[in-house]
Amino acid sequence: NYASGVQKVTLIPGDGIGPEISAAVQKIFQVAKVPIEWESVDVTPVRNPDGRFGIPQAAIDSVNRNKVGLKGPLMTPIGKGHRSLNLALRKEFDLYANVRPCRSLEGYKTLYDDVDVVTIRENTEGEYSGIEHEIVEGVVQSIKLITQEASARVAEYAFQYAKDNHRSKVTVVHKANIMRMSDGLFLRCCRETADKYPEIKFEEKYLDTVCLNMVQDPRQYDVLVMPNLYGDILSDMCAGLVGGLGLTPSGNIGLGGALFESVHGTAPDIAGKDLANPTALLLSAVMMLRHMEMKDKAESIQKACFETIKDAKYLTGDLGGKAKCSEFTNAICERLA
Amino acid sequence: NYASGVQKVTLIPGDGIGPEISAAVQKIFQVAKVPIEWESVDVTPVRNPDGRFGIPQAAIDSVNRNKVGLKGPLMTPIGKGHRSLNLALRKEFDLYANVRPCRSLEGYKTLYDDVDVVTIRENTEGEYSGIEHEIVEGVVQSIKLITQEASARVAEYAFQYAKDNHRSKVTVVHKANIMRMSDGLFLRCCRETADKYPEIKFEEKYLDTVCLNMVQDPRQYDVLVMPNLYGDILSDMCAGLVGGLGLTPSGNIGLGGALFESVHGTAPDIAGKDLANPTALLLSAVMMLRHMEMKDKAESIQKACFETIKDAKYLTGDLGGKAKCSEFTNAICERLA
Ligand SMILES: CC(C)[C@H](C(=O)O)[C@@H](O)C(=O)O
Ligand SMILES: CC(C)[C@H](C(=O)O)[C@@H](O)C(=O)O
Repeated sequence: NYASGVQKVTLIPGDGIGPEISAAVQKIFQVAKVPIEWESVDVTPVRNPDGRFGIPQAAIDSVNRNKVGLKGPLMTPIGKGHRSLNLALRKEFDLYANVRPCRSLEGYKTLYDDVDVVTIRENTEGEYSGIEHEIVEGVVQSIKLITQEASARVAEYAFQYAKDNHRSKVTVVHKANIMRMSDGLFLRCCRETADKYPEIKFEEKYLDTVCLNMVQDPRQYDVLVMPNLYGDILSDMCAGLVGGLGLTPSGNIGLGGALFESVHGTAPDIAGKDLANPTALLLSAVMMLRHMEMKDKAESIQKACFETIKDAKYLTGDLGGKAKCSEFTNAICERLA
Repeated sequence: NYASGVQKVTLIPGDGIGPEISAAVQKIFQVAKVPIEWESVDVTPVRNPDGRFGIPQAAIDSVNRNKVGLKGPLMTPIGKGHRSLNLALRKEFDLYANVRPCRSLEGYKTLYDDVDVVTIRENTEGEYSGIEHEIVEGVVQSIKLITQEASARVAEYAFQYAKDNHRSKVTVVHKANIMRMSDGLFLRCCRETADKYPEIKFEEKYLDTVCLNMVQDPRQYDVLVMPNLYGDILSDMCAGLVGGLGLTPSGNIGLGGALFESVHGTAPDIAGKDLANPTALLLSAVMMLRHMEMKDKAESIQKACFETIKDAKYLTGDLGGKAKCSEFTNAICERLA
């Protein structure tokens, strides 16, 4: 139970614009009197005794202790043997469900109104298994791994999420017409879970059909659950509908902990210049507060953020404004004070 | 050289609305005096001596003889052992490149203006290899197969297509950050081909990034080339931007032949009622004429089709009109006469 007392939260500020948007979130949380204490950790890979690079033990220990973390964007180290740090973190903590809500912001006009979809992505296997072979020269195979266990738990998460958040429908997105066994297994797990939630509508759709429908009328979708790669694609596409990765939050949920992160890049071109938009990280932090059962704090911060965007007086460059990151942040703080 | 004399073309009318939209195309071609002769074939699977179902030999012979075919939508037979007939045809004739141009139609308003992209999809392997195993109960793997040969020939096709059609850029779409070996091989083949076409701009993008950009501003893309599944997704999404699968053509190109097809469904609910929109099949037939080097016929039919849509007097139900398939068809014929 996170609701009582001061909780520690691991903070991974990240690279590029990471530190400044993390500082913005910390400032806003302070003004909002959120009863948490940040524990900042560095995840720059270190060389382990076996010679391979990995996440520093202190960072791993911090997340394991606190069970909840907030993370800015991370650079992927260049060179062979370095896998993406983002992926390494998902794997290390077995963060099996990646949740990305995409909602139209009242103050920020795109081609679409009233988008309100949540993609829930299996986050540990599928096309991301990392298993690949060169069979003979010029012939390569990558293995997509689908297990009953991982499929069932993400399906369960999706339906429970729909129920907890008063959403009415879960759509499973698949290509079981092509990958009959792997996507077929995923689909079956979703069907079995659906039976346990008769109050939630359940629907099965091909990935290509969802992509087509989504750009024509996203309002027909609600919660979507799917294998890893499909989630990577659809979540980015949905983010695009409402304004991009600078505005959409994300949470990685595991049994032993949860890590909330903005999924945009490190934006090295504007790093350190007080020009970045902290919205995605802030809304990820708001998701984190809900996860920690601090619903009131979550609501008030989210409201202040949305109103500041709607007001449009202090918008950062990515939203067509001229404000600095600190000015946008201060505007949110003023609404909260 | 198709340009002289009367050519035979294989016609697979297909199921559901297939026969009526095929008849519409035949009528329009007749009025336009296109010098081809249709050879109608049935592809309903037959049981081969080995007990498995397959495409009838007469249909295979017809395509092999004529080297070019037009195909309406096909139902996928229900039951185990039947793979999609669409896929079987692509495989049978080794149709290695699937080309789908998506252009905004002047007469049909969507959220997007000035879309003009062409997806070129590897059509024979990748996630569509059909190789799957259950390792132990509840653990399934599907194999994505990428070969140098198939990747290089589709890359070559894409650049040559760009050159022939006076397009300026080819974007390769990949997830080589995740599937380093398989998508990595595809990417390398594209890079090597790009070197041979210095006049065409070459760009590499992650699939998720393309999905995000595409819904925000599709005008930044031109020709896109990619592995099989990514093409399935992106081509549908691009079709969505300009009005859906009822309006977009498709061609499957092989060394020994080419098959042009509408990729929408069989629409059993409206089949036989003279309500279907023949545009996708007609524009596929127009692509076929270009492939057969009958550019003038292609141009005049396409023009008549676009103008009829723009005129908006005879639109079918899917486009918000009340016209029957035959009325829309007649309107096109009148413009041609
Ligand atoms: C950075 C990359 C490895 C990652 C992914 O492919 O999952 C990203 O696109 C995401 O969606 O978090
Ligand atoms: C019908 C189906 C097997 C096919 C595919 O997945 O390729 C379709 O979606 C397409 O794009 O032609």
